[in-house]
Amino acid sequence: MPTIVASEVQKLVETLLHRFGVPAELAEVQTSVLLEAELRGVASHGILRVPRILRRIENGVTNPLATGLHDWTSPGFLKVDGDRGLGPVIATRAIDAIADRALETGVAVAAISNSNHVGMLAWYAERIANRGQTLIGFSTSEALVHPWGGGTAMIGTNPITIGVPTDDGAFVMDTATSIVSMGKIHDYANRGQVIPEGWGVDASGEPSTDPVAVKVGAISPFGGAKGYALGLAFELLVASLTGSALGRDVLGTLDDTEPCTKGDLFIVINGSGGALSAYLDAIRALPPANGFDEVRVPGDRAQSTRAQRLAQGIPVGAEVWAELLQIAEATASKER
Amino acid sequence: MPTIVASEVQKLVETLLHRFGVPAELAEVQTSVLLEAELRGVASHGILRVPRILRRIENGVTNPLATGLHDWTSPGFLKVDGDRGLGPVIATRAIDAIADRALETGVAVAAISNSNHVGMLAWYAERIANRGQTLIGFSTSEALVHPWGGGTAMIGTNPITIGVPTDDGAFVMDTATSIVSMGKIHDYANRGQVIPEGWGVDASGEPSTDPVAVKVGAISPFGGAKGYALGLAFELLVASLTGSALGRDVLGTLDDTEPCTKGDLFIVINGSGGALSAYLDAIRALPPANGFDEVRVPGDRAQSTRAQRLAQGIPVGAEVWAELLQIAEATASKER
Repeated sequence: MPTIVASEVQKLVETLLHRFGVPAELAEVQTSVLLEAELRGVASHGILRVPRILRRIENGVTNPLATGLHDWTSPGFLKVDGDRGLGPVIATRAIDAIADRALETGVAVAAISNSNHVGMLAWYAERIANRGQTLIGFSTSEALVHPWGGGTAMIGTNPITIGVPTDDGAFVMDTATSIVSMGKIHDYANRGQVIPEGWGVDASGEPSTDPVAVKVGAISPFGGAKGYALGLAFELLVASLTGSALGRDVLGTLDDTEPCTKGDLFIVINGSGGALSAYLDAIRALPPANGFDEVRVPGDRAQSTRAQRLAQGIPVGAEVWAELLQIAEATASKER
Repeated sequence: MPTIVASEVQKLVETLLHRFGVPAELAEVQTSVLLEAELRGVASHGILRVPRILRRIENGVTNPLATGLHDWTSPGFLKVDGDRGLGPVIATRAIDAIADRALETGVAVAAISNSNHVGMLAWYAERIANRGQTLIGFSTSEALVHPWGGGTAMIGTNPITIGVPTDDGAFVMDTATSIVSMGKIHDYANRGQVIPEGWGVDASGEPSTDPVAVKVGAISPFGGAKGYALGLAFELLVASLTGSALGRDVLGTLDDTEPCTKGDLFIVINGSGGALSAYLDAIRALPPANGFDEVRVPGDRAQSTRAQRLAQGIPVGAEVWAELLQIAEATASKER
């Protein structure tokens, strides 16, 4: 695995986006969300997404210039038509707008449709918590998860993020409602390894430890019936308020040719934060259970990985990196 | 187990509350939340709570007359000092106020502190969804749940509820972030049965299947690290915005003498709902997996239990019912 310094990753991705028609300011936002995922060890939301993003621009299903059409349907409700724009560009402009509005109204909502893959939700939660405000965010995805008690993929991996300002920086939680990402299933398949029991079912709905079978079957919700309930509730919440598609009608984050029909929902609440860090430190100071070397708070591992990777570089997938370099070479003449 | 018709349960609980100084209108709200829990099969949030509610009024830590002090700190943010009132009374008045406000502003938040146990959160989600609006609700509780990787109770059972209006009635999801309720642990202990592996740890933080040991230890979060992350995020979110206590400083829902220091947070978003029922019906129509007789949507089982119990009566705990009758007899002279 090649190890690349963050600035070099950033430069290459920004260059590629620029060559495909993304203005510099917008390319910077898209790149930042991908790069932060790499820095935090969330490779599934990192630069492996770049070739698809470029192909979608080429195919006309992503608009590289769009920043979103804002419609304040009431003082606290911002309806955003993403105009087929880059997910992070549309979402960042939307959350900044509702964070500004929440300074006056106390709370504001952005309901985004017609926008592309939003990337790692934690990025948005941290951005707003660093402003001293609270963010709750949801996004939907292609149907990859089966309901509890049924074996067919009908629900997105539907993540939730929560960012809360504290007296010691932002607390950020970000989790999918699937037990694992489809990216990890692909990863096991590529390495020819079996997956743990409970991660998914095959196309006939039977539990399977064969990642190749689960790829065409469904991932399980995390935590059984409760995780299923959460994932389904997020699907309905987002679809109801954004007008996005539901279940198997969601397209456009895993393909190169379909307009993206998922939705994103963000709520920003104006809050002063509070003296929360003593509580978090008390949790960190607990004696670890058997099999654990420490008790972590959500975000701790990501932050330590981030610090390490900023200092020592990012281990990136050899194939992905080679592909990006190849696209760079093939498009060198496009330099503007 | 005696089976009692709903109207009789309602009458007895309202009578008792009235005798302890709760005005009729407020007693009706508190009773409705308890009764709906019984009707839906959530006994842990039903009439077994009544003796404690009455003792807390007697001990002066619950104010039977309070309806909450409302302070609109901004157009969309309602700060509620519960004035030590009955949880359902304070919460219902708060959500009605923010639901009205959201008609104008698009979204509004109620941050409630100094209020008693709020009961089954689904009740609030359903109330608002039935108005054609969306509700997201959170509440905290005494520290009963251990962090993932640590064996000490530091986090509440912190439930979330989501209510979404659909073209076929309210969709309501309500789940705690603990794998099981402490009420169920007590139930196993009372019956002398072992609990399933993974439900909790003993006082030394070791996993245990002895409910008596887990009662003084900690319940596990549902879904491992992800459920832990959610429960902790909800704890911080609620405490940050309501000013309620954190972790082991939360008191007053499991005792008779401490002012209640947990918080409740509700968000109402004005939304027209949508044609969601075809999607839910498609999920229900899936072939059930092995070991399941049907694929259910959250709320389905509660609604079918409710219909049955409305028709055939509610099986209530013999001891609880006897205790309520005994209190009724002892307080007969208090009839006003």
